[in-house]
Amino acid sequence: MTVRAAVAGASGYAGGELLRLLLAHPQVEIGTLTGNSNAGQRLGALQPHLLPLADRVLEPTTPQALAGHDVVFLALPHGQSAAVAEQLGPDVLVIDMGADFRLKDPADWEKFYGSPHAGTWPYGLPELPGARAALEGSKRVAVPGCYPTAVSLALFPAYAAGLAEAEAVIVAASGTSGAGKAPKPHLLGSEVMGSMTPYGVGGGHRHTPEMSQNLSAVAGETVSVSFTPTLAPMPRGILATCSAKAKPGVTADAVRAAYEKAYADEPFVHLLPEGQWPATASVYGSNAVQVQVAYDEAAGRVVAISAIDNLTKGTAGGAVQSMNLALGLDESAGLTTIGVAP
Amino acid sequence: MTVRAAVAGASGYAGGELLRLLLAHPQVEIGTLTGNSNAGQRLGALQPHLLPLADRVLEPTTPQALAGHDVVFLALPHGQSAAVAEQLGPDVLVIDMGADFRLKDPADWEKFYGSPHAGTWPYGLPELPGARAALEGSKRVAVPGCYPTAVSLALFPAYAAGLAEAEAVIVAASGTSGAGKAPKPHLLGSEVMGSMTPYGVGGGHRHTPEMSQNLSAVAGETVSVSFTPTLAPMPRGILATCSAKAKPGVTADAVRAAYEKAYADEPFVHLLPEGQWPATASVYGSNAVQVQVAYDEAAGRVVAISAIDNLTKGTAGGAVQSMNLALGLDESAGLTTIGVAP
Amino acid sequence: MTVRAAVAGASGYAGGELLRLLLAHPQVEIGTLTGNSNAGQRLGALQPHLLPLADRVLEPTTPQALAGHDVVFLALPHGQSAAVAEQLGPDVLVIDMGADFRLKDPADWEKFYGSPHAGTWPYGLPELPGARAALEGSKRVAVPGCYPTAVSLALFPAYAAGLAEAEAVIVAASGTSGAGKAPKPHLLGSEVMGSMTPYGVGGGHRHTPEMSQNLSAVAGETVSVSFTPTLAPMPRGILATCSAKAKPGVTADAVRAAYEKAYADEPFVHLLPEGQWPATASVYGSNAVQVQVAYDEAAGRVVAISAIDNLTKGTAGGAVQSMNLALGLDESAGLTTIGVAP
Amino acid sequence: MTVRAAVAGASGYAGGELLRLLLAHPQVEIGTLTGNSNAGQRLGALQPHLLPLADRVLEPTTPQALAGHDVVFLALPHGQSAAVAEQLGPDVLVIDMGADFRLKDPADWEKFYGSPHAGTWPYGLPELPGARAALEGSKRVAVPGCYPTAVSLALFPAYAAGLAEAEAVIVAASGTSGAGKAPKPHLLGSEVMGSMTPYGVGGGHRHTPEMSQNLSAVAGETVSVSFTPTLAPMPRGILATCSAKAKPGVTADAVRAAYEKAYADEPFVHLLPEGQWPATASVYGSNAVQVQVAYDEAAGRVVAISAIDNLTKGTAGGAVQSMNLALGLDESAGLTTIGVAP
Repeated sequence: MTVRAAVAGASGYAGGELLRLLLAHPQVEIGTLTGNSNAGQRLGALQPHLLPLADRVLEPTTPQALAGHDVVFLALPHGQSAAVAEQLGPDVLVIDMGADFRLKDPADWEKFYGSPHAGTWPYGLPELPGARAALEGSKRVAVPGCYPTAVSLALFPAYAAGLAEAEAVIVAASGTSGAGKAPKPHLLGSEVMGSMTPYGVGGGHRHTPEMSQNLSAVAGETVSVSFTPTLAPMPRGILATCSAKAKPGVTADAVRAAYEKAYADEPFVHLLPEGQWPATASVYGSNAVQVQVAYDEAAGRVVAISAIDNLTKGTAGGAVQSMNLALGLDESAGLTTIGVAP
Repeated sequence: MTVRAAVAGASGYAGGELLRLLLAHPQVEIGTLTGNSNAGQRLGALQPHLLPLADRVLEPTTPQALAGHDVVFLALPHGQSAAVAEQLGPDVLVIDMGADFRLKDPADWEKFYGSPHAGTWPYGLPELPGARAALEGSKRVAVPGCYPTAVSLALFPAYAAGLAEAEAVIVAASGTSGAGKAPKPHLLGSEVMGSMTPYGVGGGHRHTPEMSQNLSAVAGETVSVSFTPTLAPMPRGILATCSAKAKPGVTADAVRAAYEKAYADEPFVHLLPEGQWPATASVYGSNAVQVQVAYDEAAGRVVAISAIDNLTKGTAGGAVQSMNLALGLDESAGLTTIGVAP
Repeated sequence: MTVRAAVAGASGYAGGELLRLLLAHPQVEIGTLTGNSNAGQRLGALQPHLLPLADRVLEPTTPQALAGHDVVFLALPHGQSAAVAEQLGPDVLVIDMGADFRLKDPADWEKFYGSPHAGTWPYGLPELPGARAALEGSKRVAVPGCYPTAVSLALFPAYAAGLAEAEAVIVAASGTSGAGKAPKPHLLGSEVMGSMTPYGVGGGHRHTPEMSQNLSAVAGETVSVSFTPTLAPMPRGILATCSAKAKPGVTADAVRAAYEKAYADEPFVHLLPEGQWPATASVYGSNAVQVQVAYDEAAGRVVAISAIDNLTKGTAGGAVQSMNLALGLDESAGLTTIGVAP
Repeated sequence: MTVRAAVAGASGYAGGELLRLLLAHPQVEIGTLTGNSNAGQRLGALQPHLLPLADRVLEPTTPQALAGHDVVFLALPHGQSAAVAEQLGPDVLVIDMGADFRLKDPADWEKFYGSPHAGTWPYGLPELPGARAALEGSKRVAVPGCYPTAVSLALFPAYAAGLAEAEAVIVAASGTSGAGKAPKPHLLGSEVMGSMTPYGVGGGHRHTPEMSQNLSAVAGETVSVSFTPTLAPMPRGILATCSAKAKPGVTADAVRAAYEKAYADEPFVHLLPEGQWPATASVYGSNAVQVQVAYDEAAGRVVAISAIDNLTKGTAGGAVQSMNLALGLDESAGLTTIGVAP
């Protein structure tokens, strides 16, 4: 079986990472690539690391250009996916790497994005309870945000096992590629090298309701999330430090057991041996997730930490994993758990 | 008035930063410099950035070498300061940049350091309530740890104003110089560049009881601290993200007012204008502290963030500021609030 | 004596570094600060590391705004300095940090900049033969380019001593601040971290004729320059690796002696002890220059290497040093040879 | 066909990168892994990015441990390969990633390594004239040094076409992984981040005779090499800037044509379109080589620049490419030309 894939938005970081993965996928043939301001340019000038595609030229993002593919990946600005998806028809697999179809509650969407809610699609984080089944055979997938991927995988086992109170405190550090390729002064190399700085503090980051949605579904009660993202001086990677008060009677052994159970059979999530901690360098360029958990008895908190590559498992790898499930391919096809280190 | 200063432990990062500051201090004359394994070497080979001291040669750390100075700075491994301090006599100002005399509770010391407690000296964080007065005229100073400096300055105003519950959750990112100059595999450039990784998770970091001690004294009740330090790919800087549940009835205005009051007259702590967030690059090489605070209404938490240079305000700058107070000099002498950026 | 200084172009990296140095200068009072697109903004938002100037507001760059100062620094785009300087009158010290007045040969200017030549001012690299005398008392100064500063100081002693053939080969690595603060895609942190890349290869970089001009004047013959600049993943610093064929009969001792003689009395240039090599980290934020030289007998070449901070000695420090000479102040006032490391 | 491979020296950076590539090789089964001081440890603790091998345990490097494999890769300290290779027998493919068998002239070896010369094996840089044929079917391969790989591929087309004089000037920047995993103070992250520094200046670097050997063989005359390596603040990558005087009558077109001819059919070397320059980020983790060349008419020099990943094409990728040729596999098996960027 060969799958013909189109990528709308091939000039950005998410699109580039997706193409890197699709080039290594044994069952994918890369079809049309589109861009907006970059339409007409050679990909070799925009994504010089993708040597085999150097002579491809970007087309404008139109229904005609995207027609005739088995799967269409959308790496578009927020709010543009619904219109494109409608025109592709119900039989084409559409995988949205943007935020449009992630949230279930229209009020959350409107509060954080300020536009009408487009709907909700099956959620591309197969490791969450029930998610894998919903993805199998689906023709629509909403790929999770990078932070919600890291945070949900760090914390959901604690909630699934009833170990944590419903107030999570999360501080995450992200590499700069998470902020995209549009040049802005605060993203210049001169500004970010040697510096750590927070943003969207106090509940303002758009990924906050998505985290709460994921954790609440597992916990069976509303989990409030205090989320502080920080920008770290590295191109890739998210390190998410997540904690919540332990419920009464929780023990270190119970915490460990909950995580071992949750991740015993997951191909991409690796619960580290006790004493070893996640490092973003270890998952660089891979779809792997490193998770570790501790019970801080003095503070009475469960502390769970995950490391992912924000562009791979956090975006394009999650998209490919979801495509594999939707199409009935091997879930791991085209993906690796081997990082590029040091 | 000219003060003659000796530095025991001049070959490490703390000693080097101290010398950088003392060279710029208008009232300090740099006397003996000592080292252990590096005794006999030129400082130019060990600290090539300190050009004016390039031809100085390190002496072994002995009472004779340290005699005849007005102030002796100790940048020694944990547990060695008491023996040296005793031999210097009560009239010499001794400023310990190690941990030996920071903690009040011997049980805390023994739990985290595993050796007998040496005692408690006046604490070199003048911005804490009561601390400045205790430093004035003192002959002994315990310089705070770098993390406790950043965390205490981020959070104490909330506790001083009675705004926060007694459980603080702290995640801090530190530059690698905080881990010292002894070569270890995980501190190699190849390992740290491009990577974020936590350590001492779950309550194990030695700075945890020091944070709790500082915040508890201000709060008037025991403040538990959940502390996760992370290693960031930069040489210097600490970004501390600190939060606690807000007490009932707290408002954003009350939070802002508490911080404005706390830092209205502090020469080194700068509460940023609303909407601007701390960045470690902005305080690079300076004794300044950038602080910002938000009230996350949805999560019900006060979120306070600080940025310091771990080697300057976090170690050597704090030591010089304390020296100035102890000797009756201008508190800001030899120190700057201007960072080296970009 | 207090000097009142204005800075035209205070929002960029050169302007920011200049202000950092002027704040520490004992005889300078900082007057008007101007910007173009940033006029009307608080400096605290544009240069958050310059805490003492946070509340200053930028004015538009007009003759009225710049009037009434003893010295006016111009950090303007190429081609704009002449018009501003004319309106300031002949009695005001004008220090141009741009390229407009550096080159002597109008043909060089027109070839590399494509506009009419504005003239030639005394050249602000006091270490070059004859340069210091020309700066003393001058009312106009052309501050050298950052690369020509590093390269000229690395190589001129070899030419002054007649040791090198008139063909220099230079490869230099620069931190990203040398490319300025205007946001461009290739300068994003995501692009530059982890990457080295050349630019302006094959003789195209505008600093090439300036290097040739400096070295030819010392050599007494035209020195051709093959110059390749590279962008390095660091905010600051230039490491210039420069070589030329040795003239017949040259020895390692003669090379060493030439450099020792050239730099015996220079306050900012430090010829390192044999066996120690320049590092940009050692001069971070300082006006110092580290120089080392070797004679490669097998290849028959003199290899000279220098490290500077491109923003300090390479731009703003050179400007302050020149100002000091022009005004008859201590040449080192407001400047340091101490780097901020690690 | 399945090839069973052993790796002697699996705990270092070269061994780790080799394992990363072998894991992706469709015809390789990974057999014994050995270490010295790390024997007995889990690979998961030493190479945490190699998740599929996490539970492998290192054995001591003995003939018994290495017996029974089709290919044995040696990633050992200099001088140890000959003794191990002898014991493996003539029918096992032995690929030495160290320097022992690279040089043809025993005098060169003894001058730079100070021990008796072990011999010369077929040289694992297939792109050099004649090299591919010598590798096919060979049972012994000497993998080139990382710098000689980058430099030879940048310059040999100019020498093959008779365009360049026999004196090459080379300045190369390397990521820190080239310096290995043994912890040394100058390789600490605190030291290397933000710094560029040279080493082995003046002809002292051990890769110098290897470069000269390669270029001389192509040129048909002895090519002298002035080589300056520099350490750059990045984990991986080499950017080699190479130049030589152009022979009389050379034109830009002739230079371009020579490089187009040399690399028309090479699977891993990509001559960039005119106007685009190599960047180490573009080849991160890949076996690709980016090459560009310019003719600097004013200076009369051919300037050729290459970018490689020092660990991949510069070490482990070159080893796998050579293995493929020696065993008659597809030369590109297990290798990619796609970089991991940004």
